[in-house]
Amino acid sequence: MFEEKLKELEPVFYPKSIAVVGASAGSIKAGSLWVHTLVSAGFPGPVYPVGSRGGRIRELEIFPNVRLIPGDVDYVIVAIPRQSVLELLDDCAVKGVKAVQFFTAGFSEMDVQQGYNLEQQMLDKARQGGVRIIGPNCIGVYCPEWRIPFLMGRLGEGGSVGFVSQSGGVAGKLATTGIARRINYSKGISFGNGIDLDASDFLQYLAADPKTDVIGAYLEGTRDGIRLFNTIKEVAPVKPLVVWKGGRTEAGAQAAMSHTGSLASSGAIWSAMLRQAGAIEVHSLEELTDTLLIFQQVRHWQGANAAIIGGLADGGGGISVSGGDACTENGLNVPPLSSKTRRELRKLLGEVGSILRNPVDVSQSQFRGLPTLFQAIDLVTRDAAIDVVLIQEDIDILLPIYSQKGLEEINEFFVELGSRQNKPIIVVLPPGSAEPERLQLEQKLLAASIPVFCSVERAAKAIFNTNMYLCRHGNKASHTRRFELPLQARSGS
Amino acid sequence: MFEEKLKELEPVFYPKSIAVVGASAGSIKAGSLWVHTLVSAGFPGPVYPVGSRGGRIRELEIFPNVRLIPGDVDYVIVAIPRQSVLELLDDCAVKGVKAVQFFTAGFSEMDVQQGYNLEQQMLDKARQGGVRIIGPNCIGVYCPEWRIPFLMGRLGEGGSVGFVSQSGGVAGKLATTGIARRINYSKGISFGNGIDLDASDFLQYLAADPKTDVIGAYLEGTRDGIRLFNTIKEVAPVKPLVVWKGGRTEAGAQAAMSHTGSLASSGAIWSAMLRQAGAIEVHSLEELTDTLLIFQQVRHWQGANAAIIGGLADGGGGISVSGGDACTENGLNVPPLSSKTRRELRKLLGEVGSILRNPVDVSQSQFRGLPTLFQAIDLVTRDAAIDVVLIQEDIDILLPIYSQKGLEEINEFFVELGSRQNKPIIVVLPPGSAEPERLQLEQKLLAASIPVFCSVERAAKAIFNTNMYLCRHGNKASHTRRFELPLQARSGS
Repeated sequence: MFEEKLKELEPVFYPKSIAVVGASAGSIKAGSLWVHTLVSAGFPGPVYPVGSRGGRIRELEIFPNVRLIPGDVDYVIVAIPRQSVLELLDDCAVKGVKAVQFFTAGFSEMDVQQGYNLEQQMLDKARQGGVRIIGPNCIGVYCPEWRIPFLMGRLGEGGSVGFVSQSGGVAGKLATTGIARRINYSKGISFGNGIDLDASDFLQYLAADPKTDVIGAYLEGTRDGIRLFNTIKEVAPVKPLVVWKGGRTEAGAQAAMSHTGSLASSGAIWSAMLRQAGAIEVHSLEELTDTLLIFQQVRHWQGANAAIIGGLADGGGGISVSGGDACTENGLNVPPLSSKTRRELRKLLGEVGSILRNPVDVSQSQFRGLPTLFQAIDLVTRDAAIDVVLIQEDIDILLPIYSQKGLEEINEFFVELGSRQNKPIIVVLPPGSAEPERLQLEQKLLAASIPVFCSVERAAKAIFNTNMYLCRHGNKASHTRRFELPLQARSGS
Repeated sequence: MFEEKLKELEPVFYPKSIAVVGASAGSIKAGSLWVHTLVSAGFPGPVYPVGSRGGRIRELEIFPNVRLIPGDVDYVIVAIPRQSVLELLDDCAVKGVKAVQFFTAGFSEMDVQQGYNLEQQMLDKARQGGVRIIGPNCIGVYCPEWRIPFLMGRLGEGGSVGFVSQSGGVAGKLATTGIARRINYSKGISFGNGIDLDASDFLQYLAADPKTDVIGAYLEGTRDGIRLFNTIKEVAPVKPLVVWKGGRTEAGAQAAMSHTGSLASSGAIWSAMLRQAGAIEVHSLEELTDTLLIFQQVRHWQGANAAIIGGLADGGGGISVSGGDACTENGLNVPPLSSKTRRELRKLLGEVGSILRNPVDVSQSQFRGLPTLFQAIDLVTRDAAIDVVLIQEDIDILLPIYSQKGLEEINEFFVELGSRQNKPIIVVLPPGSAEPERLQLEQKLLAASIPVFCSVERAAKAIFNTNMYLCRHGNKASHTRRFELPLQARSGS
């Protein structure tokens, strides 16, 4: 499906060379920063700075015009005022450039006729010259594999998550959140006003891209709603597609108009459209990245019947109570454990100071040693009523009781359990007063494919989203190499 | 109001001496850990370990029985099996102990008749002996001023926020979150099953306590709903009272039964009760601490008409769009700026690449220098339509553009602006890939009385809660020394 997009957009994600128009020696203009960014990241092909004053930047010659660059140019990044963009497109056509990305702003997002006119002229020129446009008013491509970061951004590890974002700010935030939480991207794109290539094109590319298994999207509006709807309807059954719609409210829509020139239609229309097309709708950057994280980390899925284990250290009762609330209120089922499991837990932990229903409070294990704790968690995980296990840890309580060494043993056990059972083990690790230790622990768990969240609410929402998707598309999704569904995903009821 | 409670509970929060029953030399039993905790924290009075085997712990003599302690004993912490608690209460009565806190569990929370019977016997003995009971099944008192931490917990700075929590885990988490986010507590209490002193007593104490200006509560259930309702109705108008009810859902309520023996009634009944009594209801630990933070940090309040400023660095448009959504969806009003403000912003920032409505995107200021940025923020803050200003920062974007030095200048400006204007300046600082730098910045802003949140959603919820409270109780609350309301708080519509 959409295989033709792979070839069509290859110069966008894997350009053999990049020219940056708007660079100058010793300036901090965006064009110059872009040259620094690409060179520092180790972009594998030639980078050609272009600027009217000539000179050198990072020892690279600055060419006065794209046409005067000696080698072939696949891709051009443009950071010059809008007055010069039409002429530049002529030059690019002559040079045989494949795609041009405009950082340049000042078009339809200003909502004046002149802006719309200029965009139409750009589009005409691009079509005549055989050049594709990304933007204007965007920060373009992120491709760790091909060592293309966003402007002044860092490169994370390459991975299996793709994203499209109408907003450069959100795109940048997705990239940095990815670095922080080990959400590893195949590629990402920010396309701004999207006058030529837009969300539909990039979604089709990511659907066909063999490196991409899961897709996230931040969208504000579209100029071709029918095409977008049809694209989402085709993409969603094949790869999980998680969509965050910005500009759902009046205040958001007002800003979206000025931001990407989007006529943001009502949030309700989008919600209905996304539901019908089979995509997952989320409502914040957190929910978007949380859901992508689950799809990236989890390989086996059975459903959304959740066990909640709290009290790995003293005083977990209230944490279990509120964990039960948070799961239920976010759509998960928290079924009672079987009487057999409860009997064995009682034998193991005793009744005093324990909660042996579900949520489970295993506080008492701390007086009985780690093997007891591990046995208790293992018992809960094996219960047939349970599809997914949420374990609440708190670094501020764990550290003084178990010390660093015990903590490591506990987490090695989670990793081992996660790979032994075909059920996702999900860790909730809230912020507290020992942040460096918490972040270190989070990294270890993430590296071992365990999803980590900072609250039960956020974990529950992401689990709910994942389950809704797999309930609807489970059979088809299992045809991709990514998801092994031992059972048809069950609804959480 | 409730002044008699100050005297009555003085031995709980300011005991002159503490005995810990259940300590033994060289063990890691809870009693011994409690002795370590109190001694390490520098509790100002004598700490008397009590344990049948004698010996020494931390160079302190372990007494075989409370009665044999040479000095007076105000307060006793009990960590022995439930079989021995009745005899202990006899000893405490003889010794003239004022209050006994039972860490000991295994009572009504097990939902067997024996547990209820034992609690009744304890209560009878305590009443006969003139001893007050905290718990059982609780971790007791947190009082930074008097150097009493929770078991194995750290002490934060003393401050003006009081809390009561039925759960020890939640109480501990409130304390550590306080340390991390500079929410400074006057005192806190975890009271578990609450068979004698319960939520109502402690809320009354905090209402009367001159050190406490704002009160947070985590409650699961109560044995005397009428008394609790009447207490909340009397306390809420005088000091902001923020209540998180655990066990709102069936899964949560099941756990609450096993946790503190609470018959958690339905969430809807609690919501109605809290609304009627004039308290603020919240639904998570995050929302509870976020709301307490605003009440602690902010001294002037005008209403919930919010300005959202994004784009302090490149690419903020989408962040502004989603910020507008998040504020609106969480009940804030995001009014248009006056045409005068917009005109001046246009002059300052130009139209290209800016959003000059509200949300405001000030990206273009980065090409014009910090004075322009400061002027733009000042203009927005001074707009008469605006009551509260949310500024979105992102450490991952700010650092490469402004470097550490610029960042510090920006934040000094916020602090100066916050003290110059009578409008709260609130900073949203989401996690990213530079956590140590972000945490450092957060600490600086918090220390300067600026509330900091990790998402617009969370900030908006806390602002909404604060405003709802002040709309209802504004006039009365302004009689306390804490809140100076230059205007009657306005509703956000």
